[in-house]
Amino acid sequence: MLSTLREVLGYNVRANRVARKMSQEQLGFAAHLDRTFVSQVERARVNISVDNIEKLAKALEVDPSRLFCRPTELERQET
Amino acid sequence: MLSTLREVLGYNVRANRVARKMSQEQLGFAAHLDRTFVSQVERARVNISVDNIEKLAKALEVDPSRLFCRPTELERQET
Repeated sequence: MLSTLREVLGYNVRANRVARKMSQEQLGFAAHLDRTFVSQVERARVNISVDNIEKLAKALEVDPSRLFCRPTELERQET
Repeated sequence: MLSTLREVLGYNVRANRVARKMSQEQLGFAAHLDRTFVSQVERARVNISVDNIEKLAKALEVDPSRLFCRPTELERQET
């Protein structure tokens, strides 16, 4: 289960990135962020700021609020 | 118009706080954050982190994704 907001965000960033068939490198480039930072966000290892969340949402072309929606267990099993 | 994600978040934190008739001091206390920090978040003056966003959402008893939904112009005129 995703317990922290970081984990929910990380899960959603990864799910949206994979759905767009983007690599972490490509997402990092599009969001003007480092690839390793994208990796840390997806693994909930970094306390990301709202400005960087905005950059990722724009690069993923997704509404920022969607990155904070808890995925249902079904969605999690499918990815 | 709210142009940055910080402004959307600040607007929503304030709207939810006022709806619960909480002062900035009370919200700060409930979220284990300083009152001045709450004020800075509401005025989009600080690049708040995901961990602190989680604290505010819990203190406001609102789903974090709600804090990132763009208010309609109607909602903005009513508050």
